Amino acid sequence: MVNFSYTIVGTGAIGGFYGSRLQQAGSKVNFLLNSDYQHVSHNGLLVESPEGNFTLPQVNAYRDVSEIPPSDVVVVALKTTNNHLLSKLLPPLIKDTTIVLVLQNGLGIEEEVAKIVGTQRVIGGMCFICSNKIGPGHIRHLDYGTVTIAEYLPNYQPVGITQKMRQLAADFESAGIEVLLSEDLLLSRWQKLVWNIPYNGLSVVLDATTEQLMADGEMRSLIEQIMQEVVLGAKTCNRLIPESFIEKMLVYTTKMKPYRTSMKIDYDLVRPLEIEAIFSNPLKIVAQAGVDLPRIRMLDQQLKFLKTNNRSNNSLGKGTNC
Amino acid sequence: MVNFSYTIVGTGAIGGFYGSRLQQAGSKVNFLLNSDYQHVSHNGLLVESPEGNFTLPQVNAYRDVSEIPPSDVVVVALKTTNNHLLSKLLPPLIKDTTIVLVLQNGLGIEEEVAKIVGTQRVIGGMCFICSNKIGPGHIRHLDYGTVTIAEYLPNYQPVGITQKMRQLAADFESAGIEVLLSEDLLLSRWQKLVWNIPYNGLSVVLDATTEQLMADGEMRSLIEQIMQEVVLGAKTCNRLIPESFIEKMLVYTTKMKPYRTSMKIDYDLVRPLEIEAIFSNPLKIVAQAGVDLPRIRMLDQQLKFLKTNNRSNNSLGKGTNC
Repeated sequence: MVNFSYTIVGTGAIGGFYGSRLQQAGSKVNFLLNSDYQHVSHNGLLVESPEGNFTLPQVNAYRDVSEIPPSDVVVVALKTTNNHLLSKLLPPLIKDTTIVLVLQNGLGIEEEVAKIVGTQRVIGGMCFICSNKIGPGHIRHLDYGTVTIAEYLPNYQPVGITQKMRQLAADFESAGIEVLLSEDLLLSRWQKLVWNIPYNGLSVVLDATTEQLMADGEMRSLIEQIMQEVVLGAKTCNRLIPESFIEKMLVYTTKMKPYRTSMKIDYDLVRPLEIEAIFSNPLKIVAQAGVDLPRIRMLDQQLKFLKTNNRSNNSLGKGTNC
Repeated sequence: MVNFSYTIVGTGAIGGFYGSRLQQAGSKVNFLLNSDYQHVSHNGLLVESPEGNFTLPQVNAYRDVSEIPPSDVVVVALKTTNNHLLSKLLPPLIKDTTIVLVLQNGLGIEEEVAKIVGTQRVIGGMCFICSNKIGPGHIRHLDYGTVTIAEYLPNYQPVGITQKMRQLAADFESAGIEVLLSEDLLLSRWQKLVWNIPYNGLSVVLDATTEQLMADGEMRSLIEQIMQEVVLGAKTCNRLIPESFIEKMLVYTTKMKPYRTSMKIDYDLVRPLEIEAIFSNPLKIVAQAGVDLPRIRMLDQQLKFLKTNNRSNNSLGKGTNC
């Protein structure tokens, strides 16, 4: 039995995967599409996954938010580089009780979304997933899939576990997706950055997979030093990440298959990079407390240089989205 | 009128250029060669330069140090990555009064050379030159050429201006090469690093020319922050580099032609990189004083990763040596 109806804003590697699984499990799901609209409204969605391939021959495909009926949950699954669109996309999708679930990377995003839709409906979600859109309406899920969710309050005050979170989790779990409930959104966001900042940043700057980075002693210590800076950043927000979390992330990454990070894939395909959300926003928040994170700032500067001086030939083809 | 006879150890972009000019001006010069020995002993040396092209059809070419008669000055002009050879190369070349002039980049090299040849004969030289070896015995000089020299004493105690330095300078100036006399070798070495560390490092990591780096606002501030770290490094060695020196280097580099740095050329041609001398040695010296230079350390780590994961196709051809 499902709780909610859903609207997926951004039907790509993330939104396409979770939305398809929710529909497959019985939820009513609307999909907002842009370039894939024609293809998907005629052919539906195709998901390849080690957990089983499946097709949804018929989906509720839209390309105009004004035509989508309000649903219980709006899932924001755009790249953060498109978040300037949200002030137009979200308001028509909201009814009184609508929950907005933000499945994006980086810091400070819920605050921006709350300015558009109001505070008491925003939930942040952090996806640990390797998945990629490899063609129109064609999602390839490779590994993982767990979502950590936490409710947003102004100034990221911890909320604890709420009824809304439990209902959301129940829907996702009916769809076979593991959900972790977090009492503190800001802590979870910083924890996700412990992985995202070093691996996304260095994979682009050094043109490397996670495996190449972890095989190199110099890189392993740099990654650890960068993770320490993220932990320090969290501390300036009064969020304590234990030392053991760093070791856990290092071990976890060593055991992962050799993935290209999502930012590396974006870079290789000469797409916009999520530098603001993952690097600049955390630096800005920490700088307000008078704290400098020199290695993370240097990564931010290097990435911004590479964004305007992209070395890719746009010839590297498809990749894995982590 | 010349003062000294010379032996050039390493007849490349630097040694080949200065040695040729000294011979042209009347000094007796021996050239130690390796792969170019056959070519140069038959055809001599060819120097292209905006100051006038010239050939030396006949030079004293050697490939074995034991055959070279002792001279007044031995010029060490190898890449520092070959300095492990010096303990074999230098002793046969030294007589009682021989001066050893070290024309290399980086920190701590005179100390290593002094261990081999004794302290009271070592002079450090810092070349501001753009020149490149583009074929066997074929040097292309593009711009600049000034050499700053300073005498070495144990622990880099400042020596002041000595008679040996004046005599050396007189020879170089007869050959049309500007020489600046420095009273303090360690200060001059650190000053050179203010340029070498940011530009050599970032040009390799970001695959960029000096012009591209200076055109980018983010890079300009990163470069300045890295220069500040070099100044801090100098300070831990009790050497004061004024703030104005940083501004001078930034303006100077903006006005330069868009060069590939020497480390970038080495990287593009998949040659060894002078990471130890330019990055690791300064970091080691500063760490002994308990000081951390996080951006320079991060550059050092990134370069060491790229050394073993070179992205070049070795297809970028010839370049300019700065």
